[in-house]
Amino acid sequence: MKRTERVGAIIKILTDSPCKLFPLKFFCDLFDTAKSSVSEDISIASSSVVSTGTGYIETVAGAKGGVRFVPDISDEDLIIIQNELCDKLRDHSRILAGDFLYTSDIFFDATFTDRLASIFVRKFKNSGADYVATVETKGIPLAASTARKLNIPLVVIRREAKVSEGSTVSINYFSGSYDRVQKMSLSKRAVTPGAKALVIDDFMRGGGSSQGIRDILSEFDVSVCGTGIAIAAIEPEKKRIEEYSSIVYLGEVSQEAQFVRVEPNYQMF
Amino acid sequence: MKRTERVGAIIKILTDSPCKLFPLKFFCDLFDTAKSSVSEDISIASSSVVSTGTGYIETVAGAKGGVRFVPDISDEDLIIIQNELCDKLRDHSRILAGDFLYTSDIFFDATFTDRLASIFVRKFKNSGADYVATVETKGIPLAASTARKLNIPLVVIRREAKVSEGSTVSINYFSGSYDRVQKMSLSKRAVTPGAKALVIDDFMRGGGSSQGIRDILSEFDVSVCGTGIAIAAIEPEKKRIEEYSSIVYLGEVSQEAQFVRVEPNYQMF
Repeated sequence: MKRTERVGAIIKILTDSPCKLFPLKFFCDLFDTAKSSVSEDISIASSSVVSTGTGYIETVAGAKGGVRFVPDISDEDLIIIQNELCDKLRDHSRILAGDFLYTSDIFFDATFTDRLASIFVRKFKNSGADYVATVETKGIPLAASTARKLNIPLVVIRREAKVSEGSTVSINYFSGSYDRVQKMSLSKRAVTPGAKALVIDDFMRGGGSSQGIRDILSEFDVSVCGTGIAIAAIEPEKKRIEEYSSIVYLGEVSQEAQFVRVEPNYQMF
Repeated sequence: MKRTERVGAIIKILTDSPCKLFPLKFFCDLFDTAKSSVSEDISIASSSVVSTGTGYIETVAGAKGGVRFVPDISDEDLIIIQNELCDKLRDHSRILAGDFLYTSDIFFDATFTDRLASIFVRKFKNSGADYVATVETKGIPLAASTARKLNIPLVVIRREAKVSEGSTVSINYFSGSYDRVQKMSLSKRAVTPGAKALVIDDFMRGGGSSQGIRDILSEFDVSVCGTGIAIAAIEPEKKRIEEYSSIVYLGEVSQEAQFVRVEPNYQMF
């Protein structure tokens, strides 16, 4: 195989498994090529990947070392994605009775959630998370994309204990969005005590759900090392959790005035 | 930018957006390079991608033409993934009271569901699907991966109508797994009448859920053009739907005997 083809193959393999470490030997065996050639291939692959603005190839030294692709986006691309989300939300045909916003099409567009996830990966890639955690349902594709890009498992907290989850722990929490007490349930098999979780969700109003996720994880001795929210409501200003990063802030939604106020979170950098 | 770097960048860009068509001009502008050079780059990118066994680059002729990456896997890789799923399921520590199997870790491992999805993409890429449809919750990451790879939107049918879904249509159906009548609900905004949907789910016993998905979609004049199931139970042999493709078949699960019978579906080719 020629160098150009080897470089392309290295890029495809590394970027198919973000954050997964491949020993150099893997590529030496695959191409039946000397280590020095593969090293040079990787250096070219690296500058090629950087030119696309979607991440970089990292070399980890030592016996257990190797190379891996780390997804990343530039400041410019971050702003582009934020503005795209704002534009989608401003479309006033989304306004529902009761001044709710229809967002299922956005969060079930797996190509777009993959791009939103790259913002969370940029923000939280050094958080030391062992899991990405979310509560069903609308945030699952976003959380799954984030987990895949960080190469860690996803944990989905359920609303109801299911027979197929085995023994579960359940909590009750107050949801401001629904103005009532809600339930969360998590299988005892889902997490390892002492681990750290990155919480990802599609929407936050008062922070009740995020606090609920925090509470149920703490029942398993799992701590939260970051919280990433796609859309956070401006009101109430005081949330039940203090530290979170949202991609955009949602203000007034008015069916009567056919108006949605939404703006990027400029603190996301 | 040198050819080697251009080829790498082309691969990264095309494979980041599976099945999305990029006009040649896109790359000419990006690299500030003549069409003839870009064509040659693409031909090298193509053989490089094929060498990884993860898909191919397709050229579409004409004014609206261009190039796109189509994910695909070889017969050998299909068998490897099927066997991996079988091995995971055979682990008898998964057996729950009532001879249920714990599978959440499998279906919430976003890297693995991405590989399972490639089997469905191989099977259904020419089905003409406009949507991937699933019912919450456990099949969502798998369905989202399939949708992303096919470059079509995901539709998630809910168990309960939510206020954030706007007007919905609901149906009742009989679930054999739960031995009771269950509900499904779908927003009127979720699909376009006359479209075709590929149904993806994590598990099928009697086919009640799949039939339910078919029924609720038909309320919107959306037809089903394929059904892909990760794990189908061998019993009952007669399912409520006739045409489906499962990755593996699950037989006897016995907590007492600490035994799980599971085998690949050899008809998946």
